[in-house]
Amino acid sequence: MSGFSFEVFAKDGAARRGRLRTDHGSVETPVFMPVGTQATVKGLTVDQLASTGARMILANTYHLYLRPTHQRIQSLGGLHRFMAYDGSMLTDSGGFQVFSLSDLNRLSEEGVRFRSHLDGSEHFLSPESSMEIQAALGADVVMAFDHCVALPAEEKMVEEAVSRTTRWAKRCVGAFGPRRRHEAGHEQVLFGIMQGGVLKSQRERSARELTPLDLAGYAIGGLSVGESKEDLHRMSAFSAALLPQEKPRYLMGVGFPEDILAAVEGGVDMFDCVLPTRMARNGTLMTHEGRLALRNARFASDERPVEESCSCLACTKHTRAYLRHLIIAGEILGPVLCTLHNLSFYQTLMAEIRQAIQNRAFEEYQASFLARYQAENGRVP
Amino acid sequence: MSGFSFEVFAKDGAARRGRLRTDHGSVETPVFMPVGTQATVKGLTVDQLASTGARMILANTYHLYLRPTHQRIQSLGGLHRFMAYDGSMLTDSGGFQVFSLSDLNRLSEEGVRFRSHLDGSEHFLSPESSMEIQAALGADVVMAFDHCVALPAEEKMVEEAVSRTTRWAKRCVGAFGPRRRHEAGHEQVLFGIMQGGVLKSQRERSARELTPLDLAGYAIGGLSVGESKEDLHRMSAFSAALLPQEKPRYLMGVGFPEDILAAVEGGVDMFDCVLPTRMARNGTLMTHEGRLALRNARFASDERPVEESCSCLACTKHTRAYLRHLIIAGEILGPVLCTLHNLSFYQTLMAEIRQAIQNRAFEEYQASFLARYQAENGRVP
Repeated sequence: MSGFSFEVFAKDGAARRGRLRTDHGSVETPVFMPVGTQATVKGLTVDQLASTGARMILANTYHLYLRPTHQRIQSLGGLHRFMAYDGSMLTDSGGFQVFSLSDLNRLSEEGVRFRSHLDGSEHFLSPESSMEIQAALGADVVMAFDHCVALPAEEKMVEEAVSRTTRWAKRCVGAFGPRRRHEAGHEQVLFGIMQGGVLKSQRERSARELTPLDLAGYAIGGLSVGESKEDLHRMSAFSAALLPQEKPRYLMGVGFPEDILAAVEGGVDMFDCVLPTRMARNGTLMTHEGRLALRNARFASDERPVEESCSCLACTKHTRAYLRHLIIAGEILGPVLCTLHNLSFYQTLMAEIRQAIQNRAFEEYQASFLARYQAENGRVP
Repeated sequence: MSGFSFEVFAKDGAARRGRLRTDHGSVETPVFMPVGTQATVKGLTVDQLASTGARMILANTYHLYLRPTHQRIQSLGGLHRFMAYDGSMLTDSGGFQVFSLSDLNRLSEEGVRFRSHLDGSEHFLSPESSMEIQAALGADVVMAFDHCVALPAEEKMVEEAVSRTTRWAKRCVGAFGPRRRHEAGHEQVLFGIMQGGVLKSQRERSARELTPLDLAGYAIGGLSVGESKEDLHRMSAFSAALLPQEKPRYLMGVGFPEDILAAVEGGVDMFDCVLPTRMARNGTLMTHEGRLALRNARFASDERPVEESCSCLACTKHTRAYLRHLIIAGEILGPVLCTLHNLSFYQTLMAEIRQAIQNRAFEEYQASFLARYQAENGRVP
């Protein structure tokens, strides 16, 4: 097992075409990682997941820590083996969920005390315990425990979050090291997370303080947390440019196709988001022509596939009318087939983006994609 | 398209090994038909369904009539095309659901007036309308509209139900014919349904009155509706013997493995039941060693497959510990994988039954299956 590596082998402006390698295979970048919160990408078997083209997924430390617990997953050989997934995997630090999901949380320099959203039991998460949990889970990439603030936020709060994130990042390195070997034999590497809200000076300081840690990759945190779309696009590009050229840049929790395109343009390599899977469960399908809300009565007798050009099972085998029936009737197969399609759509989008960068035609691709996607009903509310 | 046929090519006592042919392929009997209530076997893609070995399924007229409606399914080319299923299919008459699911129902000689369980709207189902709906849905086998009474019931009520079922069966033949060709080109045949509760004389009369209609097959209705297990086993065997030798015999809504074995012993060829799929969604798995309730804490670290000998995806790829986690966490993949297993188990059971009959060793098989199945936790409450 040769461990983690990353190379950029083509550029178009700031946009980068690269390849990330872990002991679980190689991943073409820019990459979109589907979210497998509770050790499963909701609704899909690992074979169905692979059929979408996904080669790297994200799992949530907070959820797995609470249930079935990291100790249990460790005793069962780690998360890859537990969920029978042999691709690459990244775990988040748990911090974001602690703030957004837990019933009560109290922040201190030591860490965060919180109550489980499942049963109200009290827990404590710190840089050290997040590292311990992620080491046990065994993802190929683990994330530093950071302090993310919701936007809008006062400047002083953003400033404090940047400082604390730096101190916590150092504690993460102390607890985990920049890289370590999991019991199952593969290497795990630590990524740092930059904070700074929508303040350029704070983004610059965060990058300046984290870069010397020489971690395997860096994430742009603290975006997609309440700011405007313009701020998201502006700050993701601004932040990406501050991060080391030779390392992967990961924009956490983003997003809509237009957000991904804007961030790729700015030099981001990695993405994750619950959007395609969550929208699928609600019967909303992504296509190159914009979004289809299957519950709309106009699809009741529509015998066309969701998207003619798509090779997923939902599109090759089924009609919009049938998928609509499944969603309306509350049948499990509805979310399953819609998830298959939406994840296939995202993987196709990323493949098109990669090809466009390689052809030095990213700007044209972005413009033509958006023209088609936003023409009818693709405009994001 | 050569239409429906049935042959019995091996017998062991009263147990029969046969083959049923429809324009959608051949089906080995005794056969178990998974239930696809709303034009989907809950949770499975049609490919996953085929992987269990199932070659014939049942769909529910009542549900499809209410949503998306038979007119819509007809306009979309019939149920096979609507759900992209190319195997054989049977639809029930809708009568059973009208009595068990609808909010209010009023029986008359003409038919049954009822309110939809979905929206309270008023509807009327009769032999003629059931035939019209089933003709539109286009299953290979359609069922006569019968009058099924819950047990225990007064003798007079059972007697009336038998008489009405005969009169309604004649109206079904009048409306549908013994067979007809669906617009999609394939043949649809009508099966009659015998009633009579647990009264031998009424079962005899029902068989005597229905046999002259010379339908393509006959079902044993009015069982598995509240009677004891002993009565179910006794009456299914008694009833089967009254039905024409050369035609398939179908025991509706049954059941547990021990019930299927008892009925096969009595000469039944076809079965359907929601048990394997419904239990799967609740995390209860069927195995040759009895049932596993996955929610039980003893499976939390159990790295064994559900069943060593099973070739389904759940057993070849996943551990009991992982499946338990999915069920406890409420993840969609839990019901999906458990359904895959339970339906695979039922198909394996039927294949073993068929082999045993062919080997003239059915009695030994039944005894050894039950000894193993009921040894630990297989006893049905």
